[in-house]
Amino acid sequence: MALDKLKKEETLAMRKRLIGQSCRLFYSDDPVKIVRARGQYLFDENDQRYLDCISNVHHVGHCHPSVTKAAAAQMDLLNTNARFLHDNIVLYADRLSATLPEKLCVFYFVNSGSEANDLALRLAQQYTQHEDVIVLDHAYHGHLKSLIDISPYKFRKLAGQKEWVHVAPLPDTYRGIYRENHPNPGQAYADTVKDLIEEVHRKGRKPRDSDKVNFLHILHRYVRTAGGVFVADEVQTGFGRLGSHFWGFQQQGESFCPDIVTMGKPMGNGHPLACVATTVEIAGAFTANGVEYFNTFGGNPVSCAVGLAVLDVIEKEDLTGNATRVGAHLKDLLTKLQTRHPLIGDVRGVGLFVGLELVTDREKKTPATETAALVVKRLKEEDKICVSTDGPWENVLKFKPPMCFSMEDAELAVQCIDRILTDIEASDLKLEKDDI
Amino acid sequence: MALDKLKKEETLAMRKRLIGQSCRLFYSDDPVKIVRARGQYLFDENDQRYLDCISNVHHVGHCHPSVTKAAAAQMDLLNTNARFLHDNIVLYADRLSATLPEKLCVFYFVNSGSEANDLALRLAQQYTQHEDVIVLDHAYHGHLKSLIDISPYKFRKLAGQKEWVHVAPLPDTYRGIYRENHPNPGQAYADTVKDLIEEVHRKGRKPRDSDKVNFLHILHRYVRTAGGVFVADEVQTGFGRLGSHFWGFQQQGESFCPDIVTMGKPMGNGHPLACVATTVEIAGAFTANGVEYFNTFGGNPVSCAVGLAVLDVIEKEDLTGNATRVGAHLKDLLTKLQTRHPLIGDVRGVGLFVGLELVTDREKKTPATETAALVVKRLKEEDKICVSTDGPWENVLKFKPPMCFSMEDAELAVQCIDRILTDIEASDLKLEKDDI
Repeated sequence: MALDKLKKEETLAMRKRLIGQSCRLFYSDDPVKIVRARGQYLFDENDQRYLDCISNVHHVGHCHPSVTKAAAAQMDLLNTNARFLHDNIVLYADRLSATLPEKLCVFYFVNSGSEANDLALRLAQQYTQHEDVIVLDHAYHGHLKSLIDISPYKFRKLAGQKEWVHVAPLPDTYRGIYRENHPNPGQAYADTVKDLIEEVHRKGRKPRDSDKVNFLHILHRYVRTAGGVFVADEVQTGFGRLGSHFWGFQQQGESFCPDIVTMGKPMGNGHPLACVATTVEIAGAFTANGVEYFNTFGGNPVSCAVGLAVLDVIEKEDLTGNATRVGAHLKDLLTKLQTRHPLIGDVRGVGLFVGLELVTDREKKTPATETAALVVKRLKEEDKICVSTDGPWENVLKFKPPMCFSMEDAELAVQCIDRILTDIEASDLKLEKDDI
Repeated sequence: MALDKLKKEETLAMRKRLIGQSCRLFYSDDPVKIVRARGQYLFDENDQRYLDCISNVHHVGHCHPSVTKAAAAQMDLLNTNARFLHDNIVLYADRLSATLPEKLCVFYFVNSGSEANDLALRLAQQYTQHEDVIVLDHAYHGHLKSLIDISPYKFRKLAGQKEWVHVAPLPDTYRGIYRENHPNPGQAYADTVKDLIEEVHRKGRKPRDSDKVNFLHILHRYVRTAGGVFVADEVQTGFGRLGSHFWGFQQQGESFCPDIVTMGKPMGNGHPLACVATTVEIAGAFTANGVEYFNTFGGNPVSCAVGLAVLDVIEKEDLTGNATRVGAHLKDLLTKLQTRHPLIGDVRGVGLFVGLELVTDREKKTPATETAALVVKRLKEEDKICVSTDGPWENVLKFKPPMCFSMEDAELAVQCIDRILTDIEASDLKLEKDDI
């Protein structure tokens, strides 16, 4: 039985006509039509298989039967809103609570990482009675008006920077202001935030929150001292994506605890589900304003059944262990590749969140934007591997596959990148020779 | 097999501990634990049945098998994001397009009415290059920061009114500034908006949009002349809820067309699904800013399969016809009740969106807030009927049941209200007599 109802050209024509063009397609010159998926594989309308290195949302693997069964069973029983008592929401909150520091024990369920980050801003604002926000450069926290305001990645192209938003440099030891040769880059980057807070205070303003990176510990102290709260946006990094720890902020050690954690993308394996976790104090301040927070679909029995099933699969299939092992192997293979390909400027990341930065000149670190786009195109066309780019210059190949990604998948992806880079470098060399 | 895993007291204790208290429960003194639902009926942990007059979201009936089957089948196949080509999103947009005026032919899919209204603000802002917004008094447009700013129902209790938000009086002919005895209340209320626009202009500002009511036609002309756009928030009123028309704004006649329509709640019968429809011109202005709009879960194949199934059920079961017939019967019965119960001040609404306003004094229209709460409590305890209250004084009993609500359901609800009001009026009379 055909899994598609329209010819691909027809789907594309209708898409162009009916869906806002701001909603972009992957491979916009020749988009892929996907009709089914399983594990780490996507299948197009001709049953051609693609290896998926993109779908971080489909965390435990596309269409995992344990998750879809749990969803279907709950959908047949009940899907009311959270104004009625139900076991799923409390059991799910309890399970999430067990993954977090004890202090983060109050939960709000919502439908997207964007809704979670917007609510985090409301919670922080209510608790601190401050408006100002410190964010990291290049950050993206969601598509809502309030979040574009705090996303340098977006507001630089749109409305510009609001006076209550303060941008700290990204602690990037590859091309940031303090690099690998600095004796203590963590402290140095944290100090830039300290300076920022002092500058904000001089202007008579008060900072509220900040974002997580490798210097979180020092940062948190600065932020709390200044009367702010620390929000960790774990929408991309949570649920074991980084392998060694269930949450990104836990890389800082057991004693580190943010004031608010937001989670989303992988939480429902594609089902619209997200959450804010916070402390009794911050939740209490929010309750004290006397205004109800009602989210129509947030925390419904189906979403929570899906969330519980995802946690079960992560545990049963040891997907964080897999992320550690396969992620390390992938990074290792890419690092070896770097010794042979001058185009590779940097390999970074942890667990199954790995970046390969391409440069045309290693000394100058000139972003190889076009080459990155070419590699993505050729991987798709020649090898049926889906990889995306990221970074301010779109020159970083990004690996964030479903967490069931295997050693063999990693090896295949690296082999294909090797072949394509060899090819590109050879033709670049030929071009140079021809020039002489 | 027991459908709950915890004892009710245990669920309640965990809920109090783990879920933010701002997320309120229905019947907070003695909340109901619901474990399954079907059609217009909810069932608690003891299999006690409740008639549901609350769940407008569960539009075609709780757990409708056609909807849950479509969802389960698609979940097993594919649930990627909308950056891949897929038939469901375009087929669904096409179906929605057929319900709307021709001009509203570009769609953006999101996860909640709140996300839809936030995006509507972004679209309007980008197109008009204005910031100001005109909203109706008492309006509620969602739980996000940007929407609390334009919801008088919320901002009066929270951050207060922003200088770019302008509140027009609600065209309420029962207790508003122009009432039933006014020769042309529609024109009079529209003129209040005209005056507001002029005042805004005098301040050197420019208004952007407004909300729908019975005076939309005149209003739209005023708003467009002033360089604004008209946003119809159909999150509560859409998908045939009002019976006679698929969209609330269509009550104004075929020639009336808003510039942006937002939809949500009933769209996915409980599945997180919402949408913004707009014109080619407005979508074009949004595209022209060059910034991608990406919504992780918005328009995924499962959400769209659910949305398509909901439209199918509305058609096959003639639910808009049912809303017209049952809604008229309900309103008729309540209007008859009004002749016998001085507590009933007003009966209003259309289709299966009906309000019964209780007052302690018909002349003064004094809100009978406590009585309304008592009726809700007794309906639940004595008759197992779930009804909620609304309005600035919470004295309006609100009926917005699943659209499969039957004539018998309407009759039962009215009989029970009749009995309870008779009871309350008798004991009030007794109290008065005792006083003498």
